Amino acid sequence: LKLPLGFQYASAYAGIRKVEKDDLALIVSDSPAEAAAVFTTNRVQAAPVRLCKKHLRASGGKVRAILINAGNANCATRTGDAVAAETSRAAAAILGCKAEQVLPASTGVIGVELDPTKITAALPKLAKRLSPRRFLDVAGAIMTTDTVRKTSTAEVSIGGKTVRIAGMTKGAGMIHPNMATTLAFVMTDARVPAAPLKAMLSEGNRLSYSSLSVDGDMSTNDTLTVMANGASGASVTAAARGLFQEVLTHVLQELASQIARDGEGARKLITIHVSGASTDSAASRIARAIANSPLVKTAIAGADPNWGRIICAAGYSGAVFSPSKVDILLQGVPVCHNGLAAEFGEAELTAKLKAKDVKIDFRIAGKRQGTARFWTCDLTEGYIGINGSYRT
Amino acid sequence: LKLPLGFQYASAYAGIRKVEKDDLALIVSDSPAEAAAVFTTNRVQAAPVRLCKKHLRASGGKVRAILINAGNANCATRTGDAVAAETSRAAAAILGCKAEQVLPASTGVIGVELDPTKITAALPKLAKRLSPRRFLDVAGAIMTTDTVRKTSTAEVSIGGKTVRIAGMTKGAGMIHPNMATTLAFVMTDARVPAAPLKAMLSEGNRLSYSSLSVDGDMSTNDTLTVMANGASGASVTAAARGLFQEVLTHVLQELASQIARDGEGARKLITIHVSGASTDSAASRIARAIANSPLVKTAIAGADPNWGRIICAAGYSGAVFSPSKVDILLQGVPVCHNGLAAEFGEAELTAKLKAKDVKIDFRIAGKRQGTARFWTCDLTEGYIGINGSYRT
Repeated sequence: LKLPLGFQYASAYAGIRKVEKDDLALIVSDSPAEAAAVFTTNRVQAAPVRLCKKHLRASGGKVRAILINAGNANCATRTGDAVAAETSRAAAAILGCKAEQVLPASTGVIGVELDPTKITAALPKLAKRLSPRRFLDVAGAIMTTDTVRKTSTAEVSIGGKTVRIAGMTKGAGMIHPNMATTLAFVMTDARVPAAPLKAMLSEGNRLSYSSLSVDGDMSTNDTLTVMANGASGASVTAAARGLFQEVLTHVLQELASQIARDGEGARKLITIHVSGASTDSAASRIARAIANSPLVKTAIAGADPNWGRIICAAGYSGAVFSPSKVDILLQGVPVCHNGLAAEFGEAELTAKLKAKDVKIDFRIAGKRQGTARFWTCDLTEGYIGINGSYRT
Repeated sequence: LKLPLGFQYASAYAGIRKVEKDDLALIVSDSPAEAAAVFTTNRVQAAPVRLCKKHLRASGGKVRAILINAGNANCATRTGDAVAAETSRAAAAILGCKAEQVLPASTGVIGVELDPTKITAALPKLAKRLSPRRFLDVAGAIMTTDTVRKTSTAEVSIGGKTVRIAGMTKGAGMIHPNMATTLAFVMTDARVPAAPLKAMLSEGNRLSYSSLSVDGDMSTNDTLTVMANGASGASVTAAARGLFQEVLTHVLQELASQIARDGEGARKLITIHVSGASTDSAASRIARAIANSPLVKTAIAGADPNWGRIICAAGYSGAVFSPSKVDILLQGVPVCHNGLAAEFGEAELTAKLKAKDVKIDFRIAGKRQGTARFWTCDLTEGYIGINGSYRT
């Protein structure tokens, strides 16, 4: 792994999870990094999400560390705000920075009080472990129902200097008040001014995490941050923004698609591409409706080339289009032409649909240019098994 | 069953389904009945839905018969419009009425041509079978993945005369391009003028079928009709409208809740009641988000009193409310008070959640009066099994 310069990582077991598996982690920038973040839009927001927003305002976005715990969402509890503040302060004291330079993030069960002394007691050990090489440890410590660690890295040359971007993420359903949520942390050693960093994160998020659905639920804790510490010596000037945006978006898309592939009970990553819609936003509505349809997701689970369910989901998406102009391709094979059944070899296509990657192309003929790409996973018995008896 | 006067019913096997089970049905009013209907709002609409709308306009809403087939949705096919028109004409010829007085309805596989001669050949036999007592035969013939016939009847006295309402419905997922859809046919022997009949059906639909979700999908063929033939001699005057509306809504709610209870793979009927929202429409958004959340539905399947998933779904519904004012009751037991965990006996509540009827109360404290009632079902492995290998 080629990691950005000037960041250190550590994880430890603080006793928050019932099973002994690291549940506390730190990501530290050696110098204050320019930070931007995107949070859940759920009206029910966990204490760490609220405190993150406050800290970003108070610090002017100059952040030193992210303090993450798994096993407890610190949401809908009596002491949530105090716990988030106290643990951030404790981390700041050890790192020698201000409390508002620490961003807290939590994932796990909702409605259960989080004991802050578990975190404060583990912090000295955690700080001692900080190392530029413990990136993967942190990626592992933030996992809940995830079955694999999810990371993505990229390098790009800007102004003759090498810039690195590394991201890690967790999440297997879009939300699990009881044991999951989506968290993503992206680090880069480029120097990026505040305003373009925010804008680029927002655009990257639109094309990745906002184009991702496992079960259509949305967490109380979702947090996506990017920290740019400038340790590479390279600055993302106006001229380099297009390139940096592309690489950042790529890293975010790699992270988001890993979440879909690891969706609870999922056996397949489904990539949906819509083209020819009236606008990008209309294309996105169509893609989202297809991605959220349990009937489409179960059909793909069963390797069933059931295009009727796909055009039907598009039909209720709210986007305006003419069904008679629609072509649908599954794994590149046309199954619907001009809104009607196309001839295809059923046995052959069924075999192709047994792959781990399934591609749905939804093309609307005509002059319109709206496109969208969306990721989801198939819906299997496994999802029910994982979620039907989670808390108890 | 106390059925409305002046209606006759018949069903037969026309060879549309692969298995030999009645797949063609007629509902006939002896005299032209005032008819109103609600259809799917999907942009992809089946040929019979389009023709129904045309026939209602052409006949001024004076309808003699409904011609229904199961086993083929007559949707997204080359010949769909011609098939719907030809079979309606054939039924009209046998019944001695105009083609526009026949409303066609289809349910079944999408994208497969429907052979009209199967229907026209069976029509003479079907017409001969017409009888006021074959109501349940028709309720059976329209079933697809349904496991039980779904009917509801009511009687009410209007102006000293007895008026009867009888309805039948089918549907087990909200949509199955391959073998299902929602159809509902309501007959009454009251006389109801066109405008109030439309208005009352619309209001009844809002409180029943529009407050029902099995999997969040919406069919290309959904059709809900009401026929009022006046055979009782009683007229629903302005003064009697409130009462008639209540009874009609009750019948529709009984039908809709039977669909939720029979949802594919469902073991439980979930009734969600939201109160204290800013408006009825905000309450409905909250109820719908809870009803559509796979995480809530799997938790109920697992008898897990997981209120965090419920408040979380409400949080992303788009409705504005203060989480700290929310109380949640499961089976009447408070599990969340003022947005925080309430004390409850877990074992006792888990036992109560094993019932076939589960009630979720979502109460927002304060002066607002918006309420909604919504029906759904739990999400089990059975749903995946039914939908993962349907077409093949």
